[in-house]
Amino acid sequence: MNAPHTGGAVLVARPLTREAFAPFGDVIGTGEAARRFSINAGNTERYHDLARIDAGEGGRAIVSIFRGQPRQLPFPVTLMERHPLASQAFVPLSGRPYLVVVAPPGPAPRGGDLQAFVARPDQGVNYAPGVWHHPLLALEDVSDFLVIDRDGPGHNCEEVAVEPGVLLVLPTSDR
Amino acid sequence: MNAPHTGGAVLVARPLTREAFAPFGDVIGTGEAARRFSINAGNTERYHDLARIDAGEGGRAIVSIFRGQPRQLPFPVTLMERHPLASQAFVPLSGRPYLVVVAPPGPAPRGGDLQAFVARPDQGVNYAPGVWHHPLLALEDVSDFLVIDRDGPGHNCEEVAVEPGVLLVLPTSDR
Repeated sequence: MNAPHTGGAVLVARPLTREAFAPFGDVIGTGEAARRFSINAGNTERYHDLARIDAGEGGRAIVSIFRGQPRQLPFPVTLMERHPLASQAFVPLSGRPYLVVVAPPGPAPRGGDLQAFVARPDQGVNYAPGVWHHPLLALEDVSDFLVIDRDGPGHNCEEVAVEPGVLLVLPTSDR
Repeated sequence: MNAPHTGGAVLVARPLTREAFAPFGDVIGTGEAARRFSINAGNTERYHDLARIDAGEGGRAIVSIFRGQPRQLPFPVTLMERHPLASQAFVPLSGRPYLVVVAPPGPAPRGGDLQAFVARPDQGVNYAPGVWHHPLLALEDVSDFLVIDRDGPGHNCEEVAVEPGVLLVLPTSDR
């Protein structure tokens, strides 16, 4: 990887909430369920339909596991990617928090366009098609994530450099 | 629920492996990946396409969370269900083992047709369409599972009584 070039600007990650993340996709968690109901003769609570999974025209939804090495903070954000054809969901399997950096669909984002969130271990995210996001940002230790994305024809991954880059940090109380 | 009627037969849960579970669907885990490769400039290992997600004709894949109360052992298995139109995947989110009871697609299973498996906390399962299975069998404590199944028209859940029922137990060394 090239040495990061950041303009010195700092991007502070906020707590992840459904409301704040709504322009970018879905938060996957029991606290975010619009509908829940009891099944299995009362044994099980179903938190229903938590993400808009979109495999796109001619694609199919596939399930994979991503095993990410932990990132060190402050982290220089110098590139972003997007999947124009389909959504991509990440659900943490290792019980650790992680970071999410996003920008709205549209032209390649600049540093000032980015927003960052700290996700709790019980919160997944689903990026809507075309939403710019940083590749996986695990924290603390090697972490596994269940990923639901797309297999199919067409070019479904674009990567751009972010200029000027930004330095991603946690809120002061967490640093 | 009616009092369980079991014929006294015992069903011993075996360790879950890809090979043993193959007639019923997929085991979702890094150890079961046919394909893995490095992404994100070496930060992340992708264990690719671990389950045959099948939302069926006119259906769409949806993501939910099931929160199951733990079962007590020995557990009387007296009913099974199946989803004829689509697959259904369960991936544990709470770091605890769970039990899986299945029977091949076809006529309603009898007690002697059942097979049982102990899944590790890092193993999910994906039931193929039409595979008979018992509703969620969490162990130890309240446990969350990410579930990928189907929303769409048509009747996609059938439940049958199992006669004679069986008593589900762990292997002797685990009891």
